[in-house]
Amino acid sequence: MKREGREFLNILKAIVGSAGIVEDEAMQSRYLEDELRQFHGRALAVVRPANTGEVAAIVKACVASGIPMVPHGGNTGYCGGATPDASGRQLLISLERMNRIHAVDPLGFTLTADAGCLLASVQAAAAAAGLLFPLSLGSEGSCQLGGNLSTNAGGLAVLRYGNIRDLVLGLEVVLPSGEVWDGMRALRKDNAGYDLKHLFIGAEGTLGIITRVVLKLFPQPGGRATALVAVPDVAAAARLLARARLQTGDAVTSFEYIPRLALALVLEHIEGARLPLDQAYDHQVLVELSAADQGVETVLEQLLEQALQAGEIIDAAMASSGEQRDGLWRLRESVPEAQRRAGGSYKHDVSVPTAKVADFMLAAERAIAAIDPTVRICAYGHLGDGNLHFNLQPSPGGSLARLNSGQGPEISRALHDLVDSFGGSVCAEHGVGQLKPQLLASYTNPAGLSLMRGIKQLLDPAGLMNPGKVLVQD
Amino acid sequence: MKREGREFLNILKAIVGSAGIVEDEAMQSRYLEDELRQFHGRALAVVRPANTGEVAAIVKACVASGIPMVPHGGNTGYCGGATPDASGRQLLISLERMNRIHAVDPLGFTLTADAGCLLASVQAAAAAAGLLFPLSLGSEGSCQLGGNLSTNAGGLAVLRYGNIRDLVLGLEVVLPSGEVWDGMRALRKDNAGYDLKHLFIGAEGTLGIITRVVLKLFPQPGGRATALVAVPDVAAAARLLARARLQTGDAVTSFEYIPRLALALVLEHIEGARLPLDQAYDHQVLVELSAADQGVETVLEQLLEQALQAGEIIDAAMASSGEQRDGLWRLRESVPEAQRRAGGSYKHDVSVPTAKVADFMLAAERAIAAIDPTVRICAYGHLGDGNLHFNLQPSPGGSLARLNSGQGPEISRALHDLVDSFGGSVCAEHGVGQLKPQLLASYTNPAGLSLMRGIKQLLDPAGLMNPGKVLVQD
Repeated sequence: MKREGREFLNILKAIVGSAGIVEDEAMQSRYLEDELRQFHGRALAVVRPANTGEVAAIVKACVASGIPMVPHGGNTGYCGGATPDASGRQLLISLERMNRIHAVDPLGFTLTADAGCLLASVQAAAAAAGLLFPLSLGSEGSCQLGGNLSTNAGGLAVLRYGNIRDLVLGLEVVLPSGEVWDGMRALRKDNAGYDLKHLFIGAEGTLGIITRVVLKLFPQPGGRATALVAVPDVAAAARLLARARLQTGDAVTSFEYIPRLALALVLEHIEGARLPLDQAYDHQVLVELSAADQGVETVLEQLLEQALQAGEIIDAAMASSGEQRDGLWRLRESVPEAQRRAGGSYKHDVSVPTAKVADFMLAAERAIAAIDPTVRICAYGHLGDGNLHFNLQPSPGGSLARLNSGQGPEISRALHDLVDSFGGSVCAEHGVGQLKPQLLASYTNPAGLSLMRGIKQLLDPAGLMNPGKVLVQD
Repeated sequence: MKREGREFLNILKAIVGSAGIVEDEAMQSRYLEDELRQFHGRALAVVRPANTGEVAAIVKACVASGIPMVPHGGNTGYCGGATPDASGRQLLISLERMNRIHAVDPLGFTLTADAGCLLASVQAAAAAAGLLFPLSLGSEGSCQLGGNLSTNAGGLAVLRYGNIRDLVLGLEVVLPSGEVWDGMRALRKDNAGYDLKHLFIGAEGTLGIITRVVLKLFPQPGGRATALVAVPDVAAAARLLARARLQTGDAVTSFEYIPRLALALVLEHIEGARLPLDQAYDHQVLVELSAADQGVETVLEQLLEQALQAGEIIDAAMASSGEQRDGLWRLRESVPEAQRRAGGSYKHDVSVPTAKVADFMLAAERAIAAIDPTVRICAYGHLGDGNLHFNLQPSPGGSLARLNSGQGPEISRALHDLVDSFGGSVCAEHGVGQLKPQLLASYTNPAGLSLMRGIKQLLDPAGLMNPGKVLVQD
């Protein structure tokens, strides 16, 4: 390491102490590779500040020395947003030591926490106060609030509670200048000028480092009712969703789509997975309602009966115990793991307006078949939000590597063009990171892109804050 | 009018035609004074574009000639945000002719409309499709979507459905350059870069002119239950609110506070107002639940019974008909009119965290009494959101004019300092306009204020878009 590098490390040590810095390369490795092992970086060092003051001091030191920074949470992202580049010049700033829940206010229904808190810890703290923090996703045991906020995480209960953006009251951010913006308000109504917090939420750490947050809490539902239902087609599923929202007073918490292939992969690769229906169908939906009391089970029964009469469903299995409910959810939540075990999948993360999902899927099937009739589509997920993980499974004889180097990119282009023509988003839930800045640039209109670039330039004129993420670097 | 002025009018006429321009001074007057008659302006002209293309062309013409612009909706704001200054150099751009509802999608629960639509028309269009657009406020018969969006309107159902910011999926904005930003997406999940729409919502037309919007719709509740309840104090009201949220599965739609003085003014000044309780108490709350079916009435009954046993309420009257419900709501909604008839009031629009409202009110009473023990406090409103219209009523012998020129400003300062010390907002619901830029500047932290100024400078470098509103002018 060069002399300036050592000097800089000494500055960092003076800020965070020896415990706050990871110099050993082997110890660094878990910070330098992303969840899906698509991106591998190097770092000048890994620094682990203990509080907002230390984060601010680190950022100021970086600005003074022109060192680029990469904020880092639970490292569960799918787009490499928290992985440094290969230069070894970037400083990785992990928030993992900032993991205190500062307050739970059961009267005001709020929770105040550091950005390094695990999502599961936040859920648990809310539950301990008899309340609910509704954000729920597969990686909740390891992802951190800062990452959830920076990617505007969605997950399994968006239909009812919104993305995390909708669950935030206040925010504290260390700006790219090292100045701290204190937006830690716990207010339900505040129109004191421009709304700054929404700028930082979903910005993937390119406009500053989120350090603390005030979150909304909700009553815990006293009753839940869950069913796996088979529908004749996706159009029927959309009608079922509308019926469910209307008839239940918007008690639909989850509406998750599982096609035949996803179900087959789960039943083949996941131990203990069991299908509660008589047979697998082309189209399954996992429906969950939640409400104040257990009367919601009767509501779901009546809903399914009427939907059956209307031809919107063809078969259904309702969970009659917590264990059965967990079994249904395991079918849905194991899809990514089953895909991995089946040799991996070629991933897309897209959304279209919910009412257009059926038409979009038919068009996508045609477009993909025209390019490669052997590739298998495994598009599953948050149908209730119009958000599908539109993954491609290699044909039984093929491999992911062959898809990657072969027709994968052409299929992606066709699929993304189609998403765009349906008024959809090519970065629906997983964000942009370093995987999709080019994609974002292609599908964002010039006025929008130019505004985003202007905002980046305004907040981070030196371009040191998570460079190369979200926006294509100049 | 000078020659350049005439030439500019000819340019405008070429864009909007003769029907699109109001030259006559008498005809202009209704655009040039605000709802509360606090602000009176003059205008170069009033122009009424018929579509987004015309708005863009007008803005470009203004940029070319250096003409400042004032976007104008239903003119129901309380802070003069849509009133031009006295120079006669500003062009007033009314969106009133852009009042088409383009689409209602009952499957996707969305509505697409022009910014000039009346809020009441949007509510009606949703209802005609069997759905609900939940934004509801006193001026809904005359306010327009563009103004609702630009002030991030709140109103009477925020507790359940959020402010209008939470009800927006997509937006179209004519930027201060005249370029059109097309963000008309109808997506529930979209993380394609920075969220731009939240920049424009609540910016009071200082960052561009909102021209179109995609809104979220909701199921119409099949049952509503409404009661006027007397509580021993505001702290008990906060506990009642928490209980109500927990026990009803978050079915509380409104939770509105009416103190003794507000009730007395309504009963004195509003024809037909009738108190359904045995007597008036110091503290009343209007509680409304809504849910899928009429079972919600039983839920409210049980809630009130338990709250009575817990000492959280001391008396209650539940509406047993639609007429009675309307009667209860009239008590709440007539407060502003009753205040006007009682000689006007000295207004503040503040919010604090809901759990702190009780302590805040006690502290505010003490602080105000220390300055002027004769002034009467009439703080009423959206207790469920921690948002009170903290108005002062002149003492019976006094007058509003005397309060204005006397101790009003000192009381305001003390009150706003207190709000700030409680972590509250001095611009809670009504925004900033030209009434409160100084106030905003005093109570916003330097980092936040500097960011807001930077954003304004980035989007509107010439400072032509609604100048003097929100931010103090350089």
